[in-house]
Amino acid sequence: MTDFRPLSFDEVLDRLCTVADTLILFHRNPDADAVGSAFALKRILADLGSRAWCVCSDELPARLAFLTDGEQESVLPASIPNDLEIARIISVDTASPAQLGTLYELYADQIDMMIDHHGTGEPYADHYVLPDAAATGEIMFDIAKQLAAEERISVSNVLCTDLYAAISSDTGGFRFSNVTPETHQRAAELLESGVDAAEINHLLFDCKTQDQLRAQAAGISNLHLFADGKIAVITFPFALKMALGLSDADLDGLVEIARSIAGVKIAISLRQPKAEGVFRASVRASCSYDVSALCAKFDGGGHVRAAGCTITAADTDEAMQKLVSAIKIENL
Amino acid sequence: MTDFRPLSFDEVLDRLCTVADTLILFHRNPDADAVGSAFALKRILADLGSRAWCVCSDELPARLAFLTDGEQESVLPASIPNDLEIARIISVDTASPAQLGTLYELYADQIDMMIDHHGTGEPYADHYVLPDAAATGEIMFDIAKQLAAEERISVSNVLCTDLYAAISSDTGGFRFSNVTPETHQRAAELLESGVDAAEINHLLFDCKTQDQLRAQAAGISNLHLFADGKIAVITFPFALKMALGLSDADLDGLVEIARSIAGVKIAISLRQPKAEGVFRASVRASCSYDVSALCAKFDGGGHVRAAGCTITAADTDEAMQKLVSAIKIENL
Repeated sequence: MTDFRPLSFDEVLDRLCTVADTLILFHRNPDADAVGSAFALKRILADLGSRAWCVCSDELPARLAFLTDGEQESVLPASIPNDLEIARIISVDTASPAQLGTLYELYADQIDMMIDHHGTGEPYADHYVLPDAAATGEIMFDIAKQLAAEERISVSNVLCTDLYAAISSDTGGFRFSNVTPETHQRAAELLESGVDAAEINHLLFDCKTQDQLRAQAAGISNLHLFADGKIAVITFPFALKMALGLSDADLDGLVEIARSIAGVKIAISLRQPKAEGVFRASVRASCSYDVSALCAKFDGGGHVRAAGCTITAADTDEAMQKLVSAIKIENL
Repeated sequence: MTDFRPLSFDEVLDRLCTVADTLILFHRNPDADAVGSAFALKRILADLGSRAWCVCSDELPARLAFLTDGEQESVLPASIPNDLEIARIISVDTASPAQLGTLYELYADQIDMMIDHHGTGEPYADHYVLPDAAATGEIMFDIAKQLAAEERISVSNVLCTDLYAAISSDTGGFRFSNVTPETHQRAAELLESGVDAAEINHLLFDCKTQDQLRAQAAGISNLHLFADGKIAVITFPFALKMALGLSDADLDGLVEIARSIAGVKIAISLRQPKAEGVFRASVRASCSYDVSALCAKFDGGGHVRAAGCTITAADTDEAMQKLVSAIKIENL
C-alpha cells in the first residue's frame, strides 16, 4: 500500500494554485456539503486558471440544483467534456473510496488529493482532513478566505452560497453538536458577504414532497415507545409502502419524526425495503449513548449519534424487539 | 399621554446597576426568547445586588422549564414573594401592553423600562428597543457582555444557556431572515463560554407531543395545494379535532408542515376552534410576499412573513376559498 502524505493547509493551497485540468469527485447519494464544497472548489479553481468538472456516481437531487448555479447540468461521468485533459483528481467530503460508488473503479487509484472533515477511516490519497470541522464546507471556506486575502480569487455570491449551504446543511442549520465557535464565525462572515441565508435554509430544509408527507402521516400511525418514552421506533412494513405507492426515498425522513418527540433519547426508523424479512434500521441519539456501537452488534455502523444497520427477522415487530432489547436502557 | 424616553445602552446599564427589588414582566403565551431573556436579566440583577422576580400572565410551558434552572417554580403573579418590595418594573420582549395579558391591569401603568427587539408599536415606558436584533436575547447578551467586561457580573453557564436559547429560538435555530452577522458572532461567544448548544436546541426544537404528531398526521390528510403548489393550506375542522380528542395547542405546528413542502411560497393552517363558523388562519411566507397585508384584509395582522387572522364562513372550504382568493398569485 502506498504511503499517502498528510498535507498542511499551505501545501493544499500550493497544490490548488498549480494550473491543471481537474476532476472533483464527491460521495454518492450526495448532500449539500458534498455538492456545495465541490462546486465551491470548481469556482475557486476557475479563478486560479484551472478548468474543473464535478463528478459523482449519482445525479444531483433536484432540490440541490441551486448549488450549481447553472455551472453543470449533470455530474455523472458521462458529462465530462471531451476536451478536458484530466491532470489532477481531487475528492471532497468523501471519507472512503467505497463512498465513490461507481466512480470507484474509474478513479479510486488515481486520486491526487482528498479534502474531508470526517475523522474516520484510512486516507486513500495525499490528504487534508480537518476532523474538527463540522463540514467540508468549513475547509473550503478557509481555503477561499485565504486565497481571497491574497487577491488570487474573487468572492462571488454563488461561491458564498455554496459555502453557506454546505455548512448549514451538515450542521442541521447550526443546531447540531458539531457546531463550534468557528462555525458561527464563518457563518457571520458569509452573511456579511451578502448571502441570502434564509432563502438557502428554506431550499435546504423546507423541501419535502407530498409523498414524503404521506409517508410521515402513515409512519406516525406506526409509532412505538419504549423505556418510558426514551426510545421511539417508527416501523414501516413493505405492505404499507406498497399500499400507499411510496418509494424508499419517500421514507427517508421517518427517523427525524421519531427524534422530534419530547423526551426521546434514541429514535429509530425500521423499514422493510422488500417483501423478504430484512429490515433497515436508522438510529439517532439525542444523548451521549453510542448508537454506532449499538448498530455494530448487527454488523452496521456510523457515527456516535447517527448510525444504521440491517436486521433479519420474521416481521417488523420481531426486528423491533431485537433492536430495542439490545439497547442498555439504564444508560439512557 | 406621557412622553417616554428612548434610552441609550449606557443609560440601560446605569439603571440596571441601581439596586432595587424588581419585577420582570414578559409576554403571555411565552416563548424561549421571553423566558430566557427574563431569567437572564434576573441572574444579571442578582449579581448586581438586586432581588428580582419574573412574572407572566401564563404559566411556563413544561418544555421551557429548563430555562429557569430551578430559580422559580411559577411565574404567575401569585408566586411573587411577600417580602419583595417592588421598586422597579421592567418588561422584556413585550412589544405592547396588550401582550401582558392579565398583567395589563396590574402593572401596565407602572412599568419603568421596556427592553425589546420588536420595532413595531408605541413605547409604553422608557425604552431600549433594538429592532435590528433578532431576539431580545441579543440585547441581554450585549448587556451581560458589557457588565462582565466591567467585572460587575459573573458569566455562569445558566446565564449563557438562557441567552443562547433565547437567540436560537427566535431565529428558528439560526435559519430565519432575522439572523445577522452579529447574531452568529454572539452565538460563537456563547459556545466559547461552554453552553451545550446541541442539547439546548434539542430541548427547544425536538419537543413534540404524541398528540401533536397525531394532529400532524391528520392535517396531512387535509392538505390542499393551489397556484401550481405555491400555496399550501392545511385545514382542521372542529369535528376532526373532537374525533381525535385533540386540544387547540395540539394544532399549533400545522402551518409549519405546510411550509415544509418544496416549492411552497405561502403556507396556511386554517383551524376551526369551536363548532360555529369562525376559522383561525395562521399564514407564513417563504418569499417576500407580505402576509400581514393579506391578513389585514380580514382584520388580522402580524409580521411580513408570519401573520394571522380570523375568517367567518360556512365551512372550512369556504374559509379557504376566501383566504386563497385574496392572494395575488401573480406576485408569488
